[in-house]
Amino acid sequence: MRKIHGGDVYSFGENMIDFSANITPLGVSEKILSDIKNNLYKIALYPDVECKTLVKAVAEKEKLPKECIVFGNGAAEIIFNAVNAMKPKKVIIAAPAFAEYECAADSVLAEKIFYYMGENNNFDLDEDILECICEDIDLLFLCTPNNPTGRCADIELVLKVVKKCEALGVFVIIDECFMDFVVESERFSFDRYIMEYHNVLIIKSFTKMYAIPGVRLGYGLCGNRDVIDKICLSRQPWNVSVFAQIAGVSALEQKELPEVTRKYVEKEKRFLLENFSEMGIEFFESSANFILFKECEEFDKKLLNYNLIIRNCSNFRGLGKGFFRIAVKSHKENEVLVRALKEIVF
Amino acid sequence: MRKIHGGDVYSFGENMIDFSANITPLGVSEKILSDIKNNLYKIALYPDVECKTLVKAVAEKEKLPKECIVFGNGAAEIIFNAVNAMKPKKVIIAAPAFAEYECAADSVLAEKIFYYMGENNNFDLDEDILECICEDIDLLFLCTPNNPTGRCADIELVLKVVKKCEALGVFVIIDECFMDFVVESERFSFDRYIMEYHNVLIIKSFTKMYAIPGVRLGYGLCGNRDVIDKICLSRQPWNVSVFAQIAGVSALEQKELPEVTRKYVEKEKRFLLENFSEMGIEFFESSANFILFKECEEFDKKLLNYNLIIRNCSNFRGLGKGFFRIAVKSHKENEVLVRALKEIVF
Repeated sequence: MRKIHGGDVYSFGENMIDFSANITPLGVSEKILSDIKNNLYKIALYPDVECKTLVKAVAEKEKLPKECIVFGNGAAEIIFNAVNAMKPKKVIIAAPAFAEYECAADSVLAEKIFYYMGENNNFDLDEDILECICEDIDLLFLCTPNNPTGRCADIELVLKVVKKCEALGVFVIIDECFMDFVVESERFSFDRYIMEYHNVLIIKSFTKMYAIPGVRLGYGLCGNRDVIDKICLSRQPWNVSVFAQIAGVSALEQKELPEVTRKYVEKEKRFLLENFSEMGIEFFESSANFILFKECEEFDKKLLNYNLIIRNCSNFRGLGKGFFRIAVKSHKENEVLVRALKEIVF
Repeated sequence: MRKIHGGDVYSFGENMIDFSANITPLGVSEKILSDIKNNLYKIALYPDVECKTLVKAVAEKEKLPKECIVFGNGAAEIIFNAVNAMKPKKVIIAAPAFAEYECAADSVLAEKIFYYMGENNNFDLDEDILECICEDIDLLFLCTPNNPTGRCADIELVLKVVKKCEALGVFVIIDECFMDFVVESERFSFDRYIMEYHNVLIIKSFTKMYAIPGVRLGYGLCGNRDVIDKICLSRQPWNVSVFAQIAGVSALEQKELPEVTRKYVEKEKRFLLENFSEMGIEFFESSANFILFKECEEFDKKLLNYNLIIRNCSNFRGLGKGFFRIAVKSHKENEVLVRALKEIVF
């Protein structure tokens, strides 16, 4: 059976507010919508397999050569493509984490080892992960800021992990899909080291910052051309639709948007967390645009009565019953949530 | 290196007429365009992983249970997903054929065996394919009507192939992506047998009949639920974008369109072939919306001078230099092609 994820508004009725999908509270920009609208006729063309315009824009943004960039039909596709390209026999996953790492490992019948980041340590990545890395591991998955905990890994520790992995022939996938939301992300992102360490693939997403989960667009960064080539050969050539390519280019033209969004999200996160504190709800400080918190079992069901969907995190490995995740949404929506929480909690 | 395909308008300048992509000459319908336009806001939603509305429409069209249908980000994705799910060690490909079967086999490091359909037999599938099927084969690829030859396989022979494969534990992928264009397709499609033979996956496409290659939508039909489940687990859950799902539903609401298109294509195919005959150009009778023909080497380069892109088929296994493929396009475009051909040939 497939894992359950957030963002499934199709299984609920209309008029629900979806706090389960970690999408920017500012929503999709008019610019992206109008750029697609003005290019609707391109539906009748095959997508550019080289994503020429898009790759130029991403290369400029990332200040990296085009040859280091690979696109996916959403970041999730790159996870599967990379695993399929590398065919690891043994994989370490730093858990709790996005369930698709595990599914991708299963898809190539890899043995999975879980390194658990403990609640007693605020789910932070700890030095003891270094002890798990040994020669018979082929691939390690890290997620920073982590989904669902929102915790950023200490970059110095990530460097130690990558160096040990390099020495032992272990490849590392660092999922930075929520890094766009991190204040001072330059302190936490591995991207400045990507040309130096050829055993690392960073995964980034357009979905969250630009609110375009519907068209599916993500990319991978890797200093190792062989890995990029292998990933491309592991899948069809036309994987990124014309509308995803248009949306991506359009998104990157809005150069001020990420900073504006980060500020908005930070402010709203404070608003939510102050209320959580006031209500005595136990939560974990988050660097991302979502918050992990603890409440009674089936707390999500109570919120459904208020037409609010939140993510029950009990199916995350290393969490369990009583963990929930909410996205930081617009002030109006956050107020609705806070009112509902107060009614339930008090 | 990746194989070269048709439909790459991005490597040529503007104002070219593209005869290299096998898309319906009627173009994309206003209905599909307006249905997407009216639902642009859905870009901010994750796609429905179950494609609930779309699967209902396809199940009705195909008169098959929903559980027998799997969707892909284009038919090409299903080829890769199916191969990845089945992990064949040894594959037979009936050649010449769509290059991605081979790429998909390579992606799982499978050994490839080519069964060549000979020019002396008009590239038809022949009884002698039965001799190639043995126990150590895991997967067989057939394409009918074949791309790039346009030839339909005799359904009685396909049945014999499937039965022998079933007896020997060989899985068969039948690519029917161009079957929509075949007059009396019910005589040639394997779909009426799909519930009977659990070792067959039929692949179909929305791309060609509805002119929507840009959003990527194809599907697979299989009577074996385990195979469908395996394919789904071999890839991310959100592989079909919201716009692909909308376009697919919209397409199937146009119930008269396939018949109208088939008639148009047949008439135009006759127009082209009569002119080919008159000019003495050697061609192969086609059941699909494209024509394979023979001309001097680099004939495609001569047509570029007339702003016409055709498909040089020299990189198809089993063909070689001097083979070319053109799509049957609109009457106006076909006239432009015929005029150019006459100038070159006479």
